[in-house]
Amino acid sequence: MTGNWGRWGAEDQLGALNLVTPEVTRRAAGLVREGRTVSLAQPLGPASPSPGHRPRPARFMNRDAGDYALGARTPGGFKFAEDTVQFPTHSGTHVDALAHAWSGEHLYNGHPEASTRTTRGAQRCGAEHLAPVVTRGVLVDLVAAAGAPLPPSAPVEVEDLERGIAEAGVTPEPGDAILIRTGWWESHGSVDDYFADEPGITGDAAAWLAAHDVALVGADNYAVERQTAAPGFPAHLVLLHQHGVPLIENLDLAGLAAELAGAGRSTFLLLFAPLPLVGSTASPVTPVAVL
Amino acid sequence: MTGNWGRWGAEDQLGALNLVTPEVTRRAAGLVREGRTVSLAQPLGPASPSPGHRPRPARFMNRDAGDYALGARTPGGFKFAEDTVQFPTHSGTHVDALAHAWSGEHLYNGHPEASTRTTRGAQRCGAEHLAPVVTRGVLVDLVAAAGAPLPPSAPVEVEDLERGIAEAGVTPEPGDAILIRTGWWESHGSVDDYFADEPGITGDAAAWLAAHDVALVGADNYAVERQTAAPGFPAHLVLLHQHGVPLIENLDLAGLAAELAGAGRSTFLLLFAPLPLVGSTASPVTPVAVL
Amino acid sequence: MTGNWGRWGAEDQLGALNLVTPEVTRRAAGLVREGRTVSLAQPLGPASPSPGHRPRPARFMNRDAGDYALGARTPGGFKFAEDTVQFPTHSGTHVDALAHAWSGEHLYNGHPEASTRTTRGAQRCGAEHLAPVVTRGVLVDLVAAAGAPLPPSAPVEVEDLERGIAEAGVTPEPGDAILIRTGWWESHGSVDDYFADEPGITGDAAAWLAAHDVALVGADNYAVERQTAAPGFPAHLVLLHQHGVPLIENLDLAGLAAELAGAGRSTFLLLFAPLPLVGSTASPVTPVAVL
Amino acid sequence: MTGNWGRWGAEDQLGALNLVTPEVTRRAAGLVREGRTVSLAQPLGPASPSPGHRPRPARFMNRDAGDYALGARTPGGFKFAEDTVQFPTHSGTHVDALAHAWSGEHLYNGHPEASTRTTRGAQRCGAEHLAPVVTRGVLVDLVAAAGAPLPPSAPVEVEDLERGIAEAGVTPEPGDAILIRTGWWESHGSVDDYFADEPGITGDAAAWLAAHDVALVGADNYAVERQTAAPGFPAHLVLLHQHGVPLIENLDLAGLAAELAGAGRSTFLLLFAPLPLVGSTASPVTPVAVL
Repeated sequence: MTGNWGRWGAEDQLGALNLVTPEVTRRAAGLVREGRTVSLAQPLGPASPSPGHRPRPARFMNRDAGDYALGARTPGGFKFAEDTVQFPTHSGTHVDALAHAWSGEHLYNGHPEASTRTTRGAQRCGAEHLAPVVTRGVLVDLVAAAGAPLPPSAPVEVEDLERGIAEAGVTPEPGDAILIRTGWWESHGSVDDYFADEPGITGDAAAWLAAHDVALVGADNYAVERQTAAPGFPAHLVLLHQHGVPLIENLDLAGLAAELAGAGRSTFLLLFAPLPLVGSTASPVTPVAVL
Repeated sequence: MTGNWGRWGAEDQLGALNLVTPEVTRRAAGLVREGRTVSLAQPLGPASPSPGHRPRPARFMNRDAGDYALGARTPGGFKFAEDTVQFPTHSGTHVDALAHAWSGEHLYNGHPEASTRTTRGAQRCGAEHLAPVVTRGVLVDLVAAAGAPLPPSAPVEVEDLERGIAEAGVTPEPGDAILIRTGWWESHGSVDDYFADEPGITGDAAAWLAAHDVALVGADNYAVERQTAAPGFPAHLVLLHQHGVPLIENLDLAGLAAELAGAGRSTFLLLFAPLPLVGSTASPVTPVAVL
Repeated sequence: MTGNWGRWGAEDQLGALNLVTPEVTRRAAGLVREGRTVSLAQPLGPASPSPGHRPRPARFMNRDAGDYALGARTPGGFKFAEDTVQFPTHSGTHVDALAHAWSGEHLYNGHPEASTRTTRGAQRCGAEHLAPVVTRGVLVDLVAAAGAPLPPSAPVEVEDLERGIAEAGVTPEPGDAILIRTGWWESHGSVDDYFADEPGITGDAAAWLAAHDVALVGADNYAVERQTAAPGFPAHLVLLHQHGVPLIENLDLAGLAAELAGAGRSTFLLLFAPLPLVGSTASPVTPVAVL
Repeated sequence: MTGNWGRWGAEDQLGALNLVTPEVTRRAAGLVREGRTVSLAQPLGPASPSPGHRPRPARFMNRDAGDYALGARTPGGFKFAEDTVQFPTHSGTHVDALAHAWSGEHLYNGHPEASTRTTRGAQRCGAEHLAPVVTRGVLVDLVAAAGAPLPPSAPVEVEDLERGIAEAGVTPEPGDAILIRTGWWESHGSVDDYFADEPGITGDAAAWLAAHDVALVGADNYAVERQTAAPGFPAHLVLLHQHGVPLIENLDLAGLAAELAGAGRSTFLLLFAPLPLVGSTASPVTPVAVL
């Protein structure tokens, strides 16, 4: 197996996040100039887009003001409201853990696929093994480049990335987080099944990103990579499986694009702090850009 | 009503997070020296502590390697695993949204309590209104001061905070996040109902914190404030309700304490990026310290 | 309040099911001649029709054969599979409990509406108070009468019931279960939101049924009563609220109609055994006809 | 494989329920004399006993009176309450479907174990294939015989069944439902993990029951068969796997025992109407006895 298997030891479950060294984090902190903070997350709740084959995200109140209107006790005048949430971990803005995708009989780095089990969840490479990182973020704004959101099933090729990064005036560095704005969420986010024919990166573009030792790849669509009638997820296999690069999906990049354009910048400090969901194959996350 | 009601306008739902200005964030970025990143979150999953009156956190696999062992199709050799999670939003390390606690008939800033409803969740002051912030974090390490975890129901008083902050060599500033280590999670975290008699801040200590215009208060126990046989949540009312200060609960501060002690520091850059859970009264969160 | 309030005592939560006396049950047993058993329930699962505002029914495996394929232990060669289900109680074939519908400030029989609370569920008139009963069932087959399923929003009036029951050669008796076949499930059951414009009984027809002291009313549509653009549920109020008559919804009556027609009958022994779901406003149920 | 494999054809998924012929049902109807109806189900809800490794049963209100107290609209004065339930299908009083237990690579009747899959649930022998039946029920009341509930891990042997049935004055007939009262629910039902050392039938007793062509076996404990420190479920394998006999677990038989003793009877009409839960390995059920 080519890629990053074995690069950080036989037991490694952290993958390309290893590339975010203290030095990388230190340099990223230097990118904070205006002190402006931008959330890159979509709202998550019952109205989130939800493919028909999955449970719909849900929120159930366990206590609310109605209970007090109906006579619940308020010790010392204290009232509270509480709720329970339920959602597929691949809902809303989320990061794919390294246990999410593979081929053959092994997950990233040779961990046995048998460690993903109904009973116990992912015992290797689950979301709890994704460390939070602070690194440099780079926006590749294909909407600005094209003047419009990419059309359905449009491929994002190596040359599109090369051109986008050149226009950003950036040289990719190990540990970077590359965020790709296709415009798909902005143009199709209200559709429940907006996944089927989305534009996105090709397998070759994924290999180009991996070759540059990026730590994270994200996009404002459901799968980072483009979807067509032909099945297969080559970019997932290159990035998650072969190189241990987590994928951040369903980003909302419109606000960031506007902020960066206004400031004449294309890089920023990126905060990535997934939940340590034990045994899960993904985690919802609120990535944050600081300019 | 005293406190912060009206301070940021009649429609404000952001509360004390308004205190984290771009200038505060800029200064916080300057605290990054070693580039070391520390997660402050407890694992979240079926084994998380769970009070008996609440649904237990759960993870359900929607697809796993077993499906392939039993004959599921793998287009282009692609295999994937997916899961669904369910948990009370007040599970694990989480932040209380401003809709969580109140007295009388109004939430923080005069929003009607009637906006927390079974059908729709919290229509005001829900978790989706908590902005991510980057600010200065200050650790008040009461375990180091006492040489041991605080005992059950021990009060953390104003003078404890004053002494702890003085020992840290820090002057509280508007927008700070104050994190209080009681040792409770370290000593009682394996107990399902470890909530009932925890040590924590008093109502007076809460008022002291609010008077210093802190943006966030967190602790390594279930409710930030101490629990005794007498009911009532005075610190919740002072901080959440009157001053709009979100509370971060169930932190794991042991690792941070060790890092800070090793570096001879007590402040750090704090990243706080809750999920925009629409209508929820809390959000799980992975707060991150960068030294 | 007219209706059955107070008829069986101030504390009664059983409603019209009180009408199924041992004598009624004894007579019903005499209706078993062929010994043929017919289920009147629709399948219940992830594919069940699900209005968009509700959580979708879900089934999650907790253990399956995949676990063994991946190496789970089998003590003494024993393997097992388990699952968890989740669904709105008003999914699939279900019976509305008396806590489901009301007007004013009281449930059936004057129980306070305040007893339906987020925290505790329905503390009065919940599904656990619906007793199982064995009684005479009468099929009113409007599809056979009309030669086709009823069209959208078609009203089933008093005279339709009178004619249908006369054609069945039956005189309504106290304690009867009246099942009304509109054909809606057969013609529209594959539609998620097949509720909006269904045919069904009018408020007057509901009053007619209540006046005959029926114990149960069921139909092969989502709400027993017809739906139009104008809001309101008069038949629910007459039957559930005023008379304590549980409603069985989403029945599958096609098979029963065929069996009865083949046997030249219109009455049968009806088994009604809801789950004692504590605090729920409905229960899924498999009503059974025995001929 | 000995047992009932192939007895009702290679495609059979109904198992021993095939033994409940129309003639058996007709004769059972003749057992109704007093017309008294007794539920054999335990309450099902958040307070149901719940082993620690499983999700806890839950009920979530989707709408309740609190919504109206807080201003929800009431078209035509109509108010309603609704809820969602969630529970492991093996909670409370339930019947094990034939997909629940097996050894080797095949379910009952040679159906491939590969048909129980995380993604799709049990595609063969799931709960939707359990037909409702009406048959003769026989109570074997070991509590009455012993004068007390059976002690922990007590075996119920062939001779116990023979003696109990003889005392009942009954000759087992094909299609019978045999219900065994051990007293375990009455003595241990308030314990969450009351499963571990329960009394119950042995593998030999299971074989004796199967040899008499019973259609259903039930008991007032968690697994019908006794539990000891040594793992293994021989009675499950004999009854479910080899003979296709569904097991009804967690029955409440105290009320039935009292009724039968009062009437000097030991047989009754048994109504068994599980939910057609698609792909589930069990179904909650309210078995009903009619005397």
